[in-house]
Formats: sequence, structure tokens, C-alpha cells
Amino acid sequence: MGSKKYSLGIDYGTQSGRALLVEVETGKEVATAVVAYPDGVIDEKLPGTNIKLEYDWALQNPEDYLTVLYEAIPKVLKDSQVDPEDVVGLGIDFTACTMLPVTKDGRALCQLPEYRDQPHAWVKLWKHHAAQDEANRLNEIAAARGENFLARYGGKISSEWLIPKIWQIANEAPEIYQVADRFMEATDWVIMQMTGVDIRNSCTAGYKAIWHKQEGYPSKEFFKALDPRLENLVEEKLNSPIVAIGSKAGELTTEMAKKMGLKPGTAIAVGNVDAHAAVPAAGVVTPGKLVMSMGTSICHIVLGEEEKTVDGMCGVVEDGVIGGYFGFEAGQSAVGDIFEWFVENCVPGTYTEEAASRNISIHQLLEEKAGALFPGESGLIALDWWNGNRSVLVDTHLTGVLLGATLLTKPEEIYRALIEATAYGTNMIVETFTEAGVKIDELYACGGLSQKNNLLMQIYSDVTGREIHIAASLQTPALGAAMFGAVAAGKGSGGYDTILDAAAHMTFVKKVYKPIEKNVAQYKKLYAEYKIIHDYFGRGANDVMKRLKEIKRKAKTC
Amino acid sequence: MGSKKYSLGIDYGTQSGRALLVEVETGKEVATAVVAYPDGVIDEKLPGTNIKLEYDWALQNPEDYLTVLYEAIPKVLKDSQVDPEDVVGLGIDFTACTMLPVTKDGRALCQLPEYRDQPHAWVKLWKHHAAQDEANRLNEIAAARGENFLARYGGKISSEWLIPKIWQIANEAPEIYQVADRFMEATDWVIMQMTGVDIRNSCTAGYKAIWHKQEGYPSKEFFKALDPRLENLVEEKLNSPIVAIGSKAGELTTEMAKKMGLKPGTAIAVGNVDAHAAVPAAGVVTPGKLVMSMGTSICHIVLGEEEKTVDGMCGVVEDGVIGGYFGFEAGQSAVGDIFEWFVENCVPGTYTEEAASRNISIHQLLEEKAGALFPGESGLIALDWWNGNRSVLVDTHLTGVLLGATLLTKPEEIYRALIEATAYGTNMIVETFTEAGVKIDELYACGGLSQKNNLLMQIYSDVTGREIHIAASLQTPALGAAMFGAVAAGKGSGGYDTILDAAAHMTFVKKVYKPIEKNVAQYKKLYAEYKIIHDYFGRGANDVMKRLKEIKRKAKTC
Repeated sequence: MGSKKYSLGIDYGTQSGRALLVEVETGKEVATAVVAYPDGVIDEKLPGTNIKLEYDWALQNPEDYLTVLYEAIPKVLKDSQVDPEDVVGLGIDFTACTMLPVTKDGRALCQLPEYRDQPHAWVKLWKHHAAQDEANRLNEIAAARGENFLARYGGKISSEWLIPKIWQIANEAPEIYQVADRFMEATDWVIMQMTGVDIRNSCTAGYKAIWHKQEGYPSKEFFKALDPRLENLVEEKLNSPIVAIGSKAGELTTEMAKKMGLKPGTAIAVGNVDAHAAVPAAGVVTPGKLVMSMGTSICHIVLGEEEKTVDGMCGVVEDGVIGGYFGFEAGQSAVGDIFEWFVENCVPGTYTEEAASRNISIHQLLEEKAGALFPGESGLIALDWWNGNRSVLVDTHLTGVLLGATLLTKPEEIYRALIEATAYGTNMIVETFTEAGVKIDELYACGGLSQKNNLLMQIYSDVTGREIHIAASLQTPALGAAMFGAVAAGKGSGGYDTILDAAAHMTFVKKVYKPIEKNVAQYKKLYAEYKIIHDYFGRGANDVMKRLKEIKRKAKTC
Repeated sequence: MGSKKYSLGIDYGTQSGRALLVEVETGKEVATAVVAYPDGVIDEKLPGTNIKLEYDWALQNPEDYLTVLYEAIPKVLKDSQVDPEDVVGLGIDFTACTMLPVTKDGRALCQLPEYRDQPHAWVKLWKHHAAQDEANRLNEIAAARGENFLARYGGKISSEWLIPKIWQIANEAPEIYQVADRFMEATDWVIMQMTGVDIRNSCTAGYKAIWHKQEGYPSKEFFKALDPRLENLVEEKLNSPIVAIGSKAGELTTEMAKKMGLKPGTAIAVGNVDAHAAVPAAGVVTPGKLVMSMGTSICHIVLGEEEKTVDGMCGVVEDGVIGGYFGFEAGQSAVGDIFEWFVENCVPGTYTEEAASRNISIHQLLEEKAGALFPGESGLIALDWWNGNRSVLVDTHLTGVLLGATLLTKPEEIYRALIEATAYGTNMIVETFTEAGVKIDELYACGGLSQKNNLLMQIYSDVTGREIHIAASLQTPALGAAMFGAVAAGKGSGGYDTILDAAAHMTFVKKVYKPIEKNVAQYKKLYAEYKIIHDYFGRGANDVMKRLKEIKRKAKTC
């Protein structure tokens, strides 16, 4: 392989970590390896104990993140026969907010024998939902105080984010709060393990920790209003330097280099988040291009030149995605999950048999049948709220609706209506951003759904009336991480000086979906109907969904 | 069998006719026989020709009705070994409006060789829907003229009824309109074949032909406004005597007695309609008791002492069900049909396999799983408009809705929500009648659904907060017809003098469902939510369903 240079991207998912080795010059993905976390998602008992976790808890073992480095990296090097000398940089991306309490010397508190039996000493995974009470109170207090940071997060701080999670620790395990030297995002902690440098990235600081490049964290007064114990949280426990995405964090220590099979001094990029790392890997490094990371849910990210307030967005962060731009994030909380639900709960045996006899998947069969329908032919319309609405309503209590059913309605018509509903949801986001002055000219898509379902992508193009560029890479987060690794190395070391240069060489568009004019016209009419129902059920005219959830909550006891 | 007396009920359904022989004194059903109509439902080609029928047509061959008499009656006599001398009376019930053009001598026009090739000379079955244009125009003209008969039919005359069907004949086959001596309900025509008496019953005249006991048919001016050719329709072609349900039409002629295997002179009751004949057979002969004939759809009938205007009822007719009372009718256009649709289109293979392996029907499995849920536990609510809404909105363009779905929603939860939705639909009818001053204290139920599905009946009881009495007879329309046959015979001939006497001896309640208090309370809350959505989508606030149907209608061509 001679003088070819390589970069590594490590993608930390919910169940496993993946290493991807990429040729810097061409973006060629030369080897990949996946290592499952030995302790996986910890949601029943603390490992090695009988200590039960409460409902809604989700923890992880930070050692598992290191295991990924020690096992997956040697494997890709071996498989590809690449010389560690030629690996110029490394970047990582992570789920977020996935956070942990850390000691002064950088160890996770749960790594210390004296705290191993304390659930709050472990990593709280992004989907740990036990800080909902804290989030609710935080939102009330912030609204009452007129805190202007709320507008940057669509009016609501999620229970998944850093401050509610920290507050839960302070409430339920004051001694852990006390002994923690700092609270860190796992992505920053892993970088610190590799480099010895205590540094935070602007992405998770901005999107998950209410940090703003100009204004910093919320005020002492705000934290005091939450809880007197939190008054000095920022200066005492969050006070590491914060640097822009695209920066170099440091260099690989000798000790870690040995364990990972890399050369000491390899350039390491600052930590990043999965959907955010995917943006440059989809080829997007400038404004006007909305990237959809499409899987069980959709994360929407677009760059802008100015900070704008957009209704119900998840966040806007300067340098949060690509240095020099404001990164706007929005999301749909269930997309692929809805189709999975449909296939498991609503598809008749005759269809599963037909798919089996033709040796195709049930999704393929449904796509074929649904694809034979014209837009509007089913007479159905759905609201895509099977898991609430993240943007633009920011309301987890909303639920799904199917409207227009008759005795002649077929399963493929419902399937198509569900696809269309998720497309309307995306269009609602596109429209809301556009109206708020954030330009969106084209769509870019990556992730499983964008690769597998042609009908879905065409419908998204028709509903939004925009071209959709599908990323060639099947692992855009890891590729993006590797790209940032190459940027951390810099051109002098065989990498790139900017993420724009990296994107120009390392990313490809596989396919472009173009809107079909007559479908666009038809979907304009249907989207207008969606919007009326969306607003009726979503903006307070009829809160039936919330009342039904309340009735449901009490159904067994009344 | 000695001196026991018997009565015959002949139930004319859509596909076949049934004869039921009943012991007059006890109501014991001693024999039954079903004869399929040789020509069935004629909706593709005229029998014995290549003449194709248009979409929405549905005809029948009147000879088939006679075949039922000639075959089914001898069979029940033979099976039961009952002496024809002991059969004191006969009554019939029919689908309606099922109508035909008749010659001066009482033959169906299609029985004449010269009109056999003319589709309009045949019987138009109740579900012949090709007179929709005529119905629409009739409703417009009647509304414009302020015809007060509209209020008696919930504001709308159905395309299934007599006048639109006659008008279609006048429009499309003027010569048939011309040569027809009269237009008759099939139920009256069959009675005329047996007795030689040209007489009409107050039930079909009232519910299907816009006739009123005091006011008669609509005015000449109205008919002229429809179409100058129809000006004299009533006096020229509808002018037979109309008598109350419960009357004797005449006696069996010698010729017909021979063909049917009965004795000449057997008392014959006036014609009747299936759901209306079922009312006394369910034991209901006085006001305050709503009878639900439950199958693919539900027909609701209740008696009252005064004429009242009830929003969206199907009709109110004096003597229309039980002589001396006003019979109020309402309906739900799809009930059992919705559950059939669900089972065929929405139940996953894993469920059908489970049912098969346990050797129970899929409906039983769903009932079992849905029955394990608490009211409100699913978080779902549905609008039962899979086939439009007959009462109280009278709108065929409304469509079904399911609201409240989440990623955890299970098939049995949807199934239960659909059952509940049909119960809310019935409750809406009960409430509307009650508010209009038509008393409803208890419910009575007959028909397949009432016999098979305990969960459904309990939910109806809980939702309406009323007891439901389930008729013991599995064939209430035929039993009701036989009861009217016994009344036609009169006490002197071994029958009864009144339908009240007949009901006291010949009908039984099999089971009574009582409302469960805590379920009633829970369903009160859920019904309140149903009502809000019902009114929002059904009363003009958001006509999305109609707009979707319009989009659907044009979907393939735009």
C-alpha cells in the first residue's frame, strides 16, 4: 500500500462500536469492524450485582468504549494490512447526551471500587429517561425566568440532555454529585482517555449542555434557582475548555497507542455526535442543504450563516457541526420505527406468505404494492406521531392518527400513508426552517432508510418538492469521524487542512431523486390537509391525545 | 302433533330465502329450510343474455322469490311432519327497498318475453346504487321547495329508496316507465302472488316511499318539479291501498296453496321488512326499547307514541313496525363489516397462526386478547365511519379514523377500539333520540353479532349505560314474520289477535348484559372525546374526508 495515508473513524452506537479505516486521498472505505459492548445497554441490573434499576433507566459501562478501541482498531489494521505508520488521524462520534461523572484524574466514577454499586456513578446513556421530572421543572423555571436560551432549543430542554441528568444525580445521589470532579459527555471522555487532554467539543456542549459560544452556559442565578447545590455547577464541574468541531484535540498517548495498535502521536479530533458527523460525510459543508440521517428516527441538520430562532427546532449551535457556521438541528422521533411497527402488528398473514413464497422481504412486497398506487389514490392521510412529535411541536404526548379508512382500504395503502405522513413531517420541518429564514435548497440523505427504500425517497422528494442526494457511504457517521481525523492531522501529515477539502475528496453522492411534477402538485393538496389536522391536534385546539394518555395511565386502577 | 297450530315465516334475504315453521303456542322453531335464489344477485349480466349491467347495478329475478315458496315450505312441512291443515298463518319479510315494475295483471314486467332483455324491467335490489344522481337531484329539489317530509328522513332520501329508483327507470327506460301499471315493493308483490290482493304495507310505504299516514305521498307539484313525467306517478302507478303492519293481507289462493303445499285460505299477513319484523321477535312491542339488528351493519328501531323529528334518523313511520305506534329507524352502515375488514387486512400472521394452533377462530382470539384490556387502556379512539355514517350525520362520504397509535399499540387494542367506536356510534343514536324526546330505557339485540361476541355486547352495555336483552331466536326476522302470520290468522283460527299476545308467547330473552359501573364511568370520558372528533369531522368544521375522497376520485387521471 506504500505511501497511501489513512484515517480512522470510530462510531459509538447504542449497542456496539464500529471502527472504519478510510483512505484519505479517495475516501475509499478499506476495512470496518464492529465490537458489541460487553455490558450493552444496562437497564435491568448493575453488572455483577443484584442492584435493580428503575423503569426508564439506561446505563452503560465506560470500559466498553475502551474495549472497542482495543479490539476493533487492531482488527481493521490486520484485515486491511495497513501499516499503523500510515494512519494519520482518528475521529470519533457518539450517541448523545451520553454522560458520566469523572474523577480528578479522569477516571469514570464507576471504575472506582467504592462507587461500583452506585447506579449514578455509571454512564447515563442518551435514552436514560429517568430525569423527566428534573427536565419538567427546569423548563418551568427557565420559562418563568424568561431565560432566552429556551428559544435556541425549540422552547424545551429534553430530559435526555446534560443538565436534567446532572440534576437527577444531585437529587438522588448527592454524594456522587459531590465527589464528581466533573460531568462529561462520553465522547469527550473517550477523547481524553486517548489524548490525556480535558477538552469539550462545541457540538455536545451546544446541543446538549445549553452552552452558547458568545453567552456561555446559563447563569449562576439560573442554576441556583433550579437548586442551590447547582449554583456553581459550571465553574466547579463543567469548566473544561470548549473548542469548535473540526479542531484537533491532541495526540494519541504512548500507552493508548500501544493498546490500540497505532503509532503514538497520531492526531485525534475533538469528540463529535453521530448524526452531526454524518453531515460532512454526506458531502454537506455549506448552508442550504438539509441532511437527513434516516433510520428508526430522522435527525435533520442544516447549516446557516446567522443564528435564527426556529419554532420547535432541537437546537442551533455555532460551530456545532461545521466550524464557521451555525448548525441547526431538528428531528422526527419515529420514522423507520413506524414501518417496523406496521409490519409487526398490521400486515396480514397472506402478505407475509406471499413475500416468503417470492423470496422477498415483507418491506419489499409492501414497497412494490404501495409503489403501484398514485399519490392520493388511497384516500388516506396519517399523522406520524407514533412516538410523539420532536419537531416542530416538541411534544412527546402526541400520538398517531390514520384517517380516511374504508372497507376497501388495503394494507399497502396504509403503509404508503404512513410513509407519506413521515414525509409531511419532514416537510413541516423544511417549511418551518424556511419561514424562519434558514434557507433549504436541497436535501441530502444518509442512513439505512435512505439506502433501502426507493419509494420512500421518491415520496420525500415529491412531498418536499426538492432534489434528494443520497450519500454513497453506508456508514456516514464513522466516515465523518474519519474525515475529522484527517483534518486533525492536517495536510502536512497527509490529511486535509479543512473539512471542505476532506469532503471534496472523501465523499460521494450515489443517487439523486428528483421531484416528479404531477406528484408534487398532488402532494401539495394532501400536505395542506395534513397541516390542518397537524395544527388541530398538535397546537391545542383539541388535546384529545393528551387526555387519552391520561385516561390510559389510570385505566387499570380506576 | 295433534291439534298444535303452526305459523310460517318466510325471510327473503339478499342471496336466499328462508322458511321457518313455528309452533304458535310456544314459539318453538320446529323446522327451517333455506333456498338460494337461482339467479342470486344479478350485477354483471342479465340472466340468459350477454347484456352487461353497469357498475353499481344490482338486480334480482322475481321468479326466484316464488321458487323459495315452492321449495322451502314443502321442505319444512316434510321435515317436521306438520300437517298443512295445522298451519294457520304465514308472514314474510324482505330486504327493502327492493322494487319492480308490474303489469296490470300482477306479473313482473321482466316475466314478459318482450321485456326480458330490458334491465329496467327486472327487480332492483336494495343495494342497486345506480340512482344516486336522481337521489341527489330529488334532495336538492325537496330542500329548495322546503318539503317537510325531509325532516322525517333525517334530511335525506337515499338512492336506495323507491322514488329515485322509479325516476331512474323514467330517465333511462321511458318505455318501461310507461308500460308499468305500477311499481311495487317485492314484499308486496310476493303477497299479491299468494293472495291475489293488491295491497301495500305501511312499513315500506313509510320508510322507503315517502308515504305518511296523514299526509300521504309527496304532492303532485313536487313530483312535477322532479320531472313532468312523474307528475301523476302516485295516482297512476302507486295507487294501491296501504294498510298497517299487523294486518291480514288476504288468504292463500287455491292455485298457490297447491304449489306451496299449504291449505287454500291460509291467512297471509301484509308484507314486511327484515329488521322491522325482527322487532316483535326480539320481544319488543311497546315504546322505550331500542332493538338493534346486528350484523354487517346495525339497524336500530324504537317505538314511540308521538311523531318526533330526530336528527339524522332513517325514518319515522306510523304503524311502520307495530300498529298503533310510531316506528323510528336509525342505522350504522358498517359494524360487523369493519371487524371483517380488520381481520382480513390488519391482523398479523402470528395471530392467525396462534388461532389455528389453538383451534379457535381469529375473532375468538381477538375477543380473548381484547377482553383482557381495561376500558381506556389502549389510549386509542376510533370513528366508525368505514362505510360512511348513516345516523346521525347521514353522510356516505365520511371515512374511518384511528387516533392514539403508538409504537406499542397491539392489534387487539385496535380491534377493541373499533368495537368501542361502533358502540359510541350506537350511543350517539341513543343520545340523539333521547334528546329529541324519544324515550330509550333498554336495549334489545338480535342478529349474528349479538349472539357471537360477548365482549362486544358488554361494551355496548357499558358505553350506553343500559341493559341489553339478547333475543333467543337466531332468526328473528323469520320468527317475526311467522308471528305476524299468526296474528293474520287470529285467535279464532288458532293464532293470536294482537302482536302483543304473539310476543308474550312466542319470544324469549336468552341473556341480559348489565352495565358495569366503573366501565360506564370510564366510557363516559372516552365517549366525550369521540363526540368532539365526531362533530369536528362530521359537522363541517373540517371536511377533510370529503376532500380526500375528491382527490382520490381524480388520483389516477391527474
